[in-house]
Amino acid sequence: MYVGIDVGGTNLKAGLVDEAGRLLATRKIPLGPFQGKEYFVRRLAELTAQVSRDGGVAPGDLEYVGMGIPGAVAEGNILYTCNIPLANVPIERLFSQYLDVPVLLENDANCAAVGEYFCGAGRGTKNFAVVTLGTGIGGGFILGGKLYAASGMSGEVGHMVVERNGAVCNCGRRGCWETYASATGLIRMTKEAMEGNRESLLWEESKGGTAVSGRTAFAAALRGDVAAKALCETYVDYLAAGIVNLLNILQPEVLAIGGGVSEAEDELLLTPLREIVDRESYAAHCGGKATVVKAELGNDAGIIGAALLKRAI
Amino acid sequence: MYVGIDVGGTNLKAGLVDEAGRLLATRKIPLGPFQGKEYFVRRLAELTAQVSRDGGVAPGDLEYVGMGIPGAVAEGNILYTCNIPLANVPIERLFSQYLDVPVLLENDANCAAVGEYFCGAGRGTKNFAVVTLGTGIGGGFILGGKLYAASGMSGEVGHMVVERNGAVCNCGRRGCWETYASATGLIRMTKEAMEGNRESLLWEESKGGTAVSGRTAFAAALRGDVAAKALCETYVDYLAAGIVNLLNILQPEVLAIGGGVSEAEDELLLTPLREIVDRESYAAHCGGKATVVKAELGNDAGIIGAALLKRAI
Repeated sequence: MYVGIDVGGTNLKAGLVDEAGRLLATRKIPLGPFQGKEYFVRRLAELTAQVSRDGGVAPGDLEYVGMGIPGAVAEGNILYTCNIPLANVPIERLFSQYLDVPVLLENDANCAAVGEYFCGAGRGTKNFAVVTLGTGIGGGFILGGKLYAASGMSGEVGHMVVERNGAVCNCGRRGCWETYASATGLIRMTKEAMEGNRESLLWEESKGGTAVSGRTAFAAALRGDVAAKALCETYVDYLAAGIVNLLNILQPEVLAIGGGVSEAEDELLLTPLREIVDRESYAAHCGGKATVVKAELGNDAGIIGAALLKRAI
Repeated sequence: MYVGIDVGGTNLKAGLVDEAGRLLATRKIPLGPFQGKEYFVRRLAELTAQVSRDGGVAPGDLEYVGMGIPGAVAEGNILYTCNIPLANVPIERLFSQYLDVPVLLENDANCAAVGEYFCGAGRGTKNFAVVTLGTGIGGGFILGGKLYAASGMSGEVGHMVVERNGAVCNCGRRGCWETYASATGLIRMTKEAMEGNRESLLWEESKGGTAVSGRTAFAAALRGDVAAKALCETYVDYLAAGIVNLLNILQPEVLAIGGGVSEAEDELLLTPLREIVDRESYAAHCGGKATVVKAELGNDAGIIGAALLKRAI
């Protein structure tokens, strides 16, 4: 039995997971304001013990606790996180003061890839990629059956330039994939499209522009709005640019897209995306084929993957 | 003892290589017009026997022959080649009619990566990438100490779009990295720059435009030509776009650039390239560092890598 914890910017989510990757119990608590390393690790230990007991397992009987961290992780150490001041926190040592269970740390996108690989869209593959379309774009790779996690910093697929001299990215580059193909990028492009189309249903779908989301464009396009349809096509074109790039570079058997945007209707997202992939990916010239699918585990991928980490490293 | 063969579009190059990766003998013969599979494989066997004897080794004593093929290779079979009609040639079986030595096949860029990994710029690393700037752009990755060669089709780094809707590529996409950063791309951009600058030394360096090469821009820039300097800066900017993309995706410890263009003067190529990499790569924000260097083995990388293939798979 394992516990997997997904350390998010808003919540801590934990799950008790069995050998088959089944979630036997879950818990979610708000991250709350950061009150120091000791307190943070104590809460992780308490959460572990609680979710373990929820599933009828004594915490001391856990094989290990896997944790997905939104940042760079190497050799059990947290190198860098954007949103929580966790750099250089000796989590394993602090954790052992509360629970005598080994701790494994990994980047959260990598955990999602591990979860999907063992229990979701990546089952049965050897080379597999997950791309998560959220605030940014995260990426994780299983290569040769093992998690690829070079120096804790790999998989920053969102920071791949697809439009040289394009939109300014938080990372300092211009034209990064995530400035277009993340939910944030879609929202920005939706606002731009609205400015030029006062009559568009994009306004109605976003409550007069006060509630533009990653859903607005798809909702208006489904109702036949011309500007929204064109916007969705542009979005899919940007999304495909980065996905075909990844396929050409790494040629996984399956690439799964996850995150909120991936839940859009197939006719607006997955179907046109696959058309571009089939037309543009290099392997298509040689009879090769990469399958682009939706991720299957939703928000549980990170917990399950964290719990099954040891099997992937 | 091993023999490595580099099957090029123009020449067949072979080398006898010892356990330490030293080249003990080399031979080069023209590919010549293609006269059938049987004849082609017989020439490979003859070349193997000759270079082996050149180095004082009986061909039957070779452990294996490694071959680098300009195309897609999987499980000892040639799936696809652009320039030589070798698809579905059972090389190992045909070869055994002439020489009783095992044959290993691999993509040529992957062989170059293996050669540089064991004997050149990648020594001592665990994750390493080679990018070859030639007619196109080739790529090979060593990940976790092993050659990454998914389905024979990975490493097509040249077909990564860096300028959406940019220049048309042979692969059918627009704005692929190799339409700008290969030698072919540089030559195209050189011709474009010349058109707008009749007084530029680019004309003199290319014999009035009749001999534009991947060297023209650098030669004129060294003489202080303003248009040529601007062209070199643009070229390095495109080159950096793809290199930083690869670093952000795979985060190798070292990325080596090879091929003719990589031999340009450091002040015009490697130095400004490194400045952009240090500024733009994602890991730089977290104290991380990827080292961009020149490949060390030149044209021998493919032969040496083919000979040492078994160690990398």
